[in-house]
Amino acid sequence: MSAEVEEMLKRFSTMKNIVGIVVVDYDGIAIKSTLDNTMSVHYAAHMQLLTEKARQVILDLDATNEFTSMRIRTTYFEIILVPLEHYFIVVLQNPCD
Amino acid sequence: MSAEVEEMLKRFSTMKNIVGIVVVDYDGIAIKSTLDNTMSVHYAAHMQLLTEKARQVILDLDATNEFTSMRIRTTYFEIILVPLEHYFIVVLQNPCD
Repeated sequence: MSAEVEEMLKRFSTMKNIVGIVVVDYDGIAIKSTLDNTMSVHYAAHMQLLTEKARQVILDLDATNEFTSMRIRTTYFEIILVPLEHYFIVVLQNPCD
Repeated sequence: MSAEVEEMLKRFSTMKNIVGIVVVDYDGIAIKSTLDNTMSVHYAAHMQLLTEKARQVILDLDATNEFTSMRIRTTYFEIILVPLEHYFIVVLQNPCD
């Protein structure tokens, strides 16, 4: 895995209230994860769909612009998506106190 | 428009670095906007697709969970999406200093 990914993982793992981190390739396959196998597979596949849609929507609105990250708030937790060159990172975080 | 939407608009319009605010119905039609007509139509349609995908992905992962908001960072600006009952709000914001 590239140094960029390792650096990101290190940065995220020091953040507070982290529930899980998954590294996903652009085929939607989890290649590294702190979640159990079932959760990793589900999150990887679903977040790949969402990352792809976000990337496409931002490009369609302005071909010179680029999607750099996304934070999704849900009832239970937050999901952070960071697209890198060959992978994207999914971070699940409990809301901060 | 409902009091909930008016309240949200008031809240967002006091935020710093706001570029534009669009209120969109779930058919992807802009019903109120501070952007010009072309931009409003584009943002409404594209953000409706993204909101729908986010809502669906979060539900598919856990049927008891719910998507409550999203912040997308791009090279040029940030996009905040807040789904309400009958509409969702799209806020374009320049990155904070």
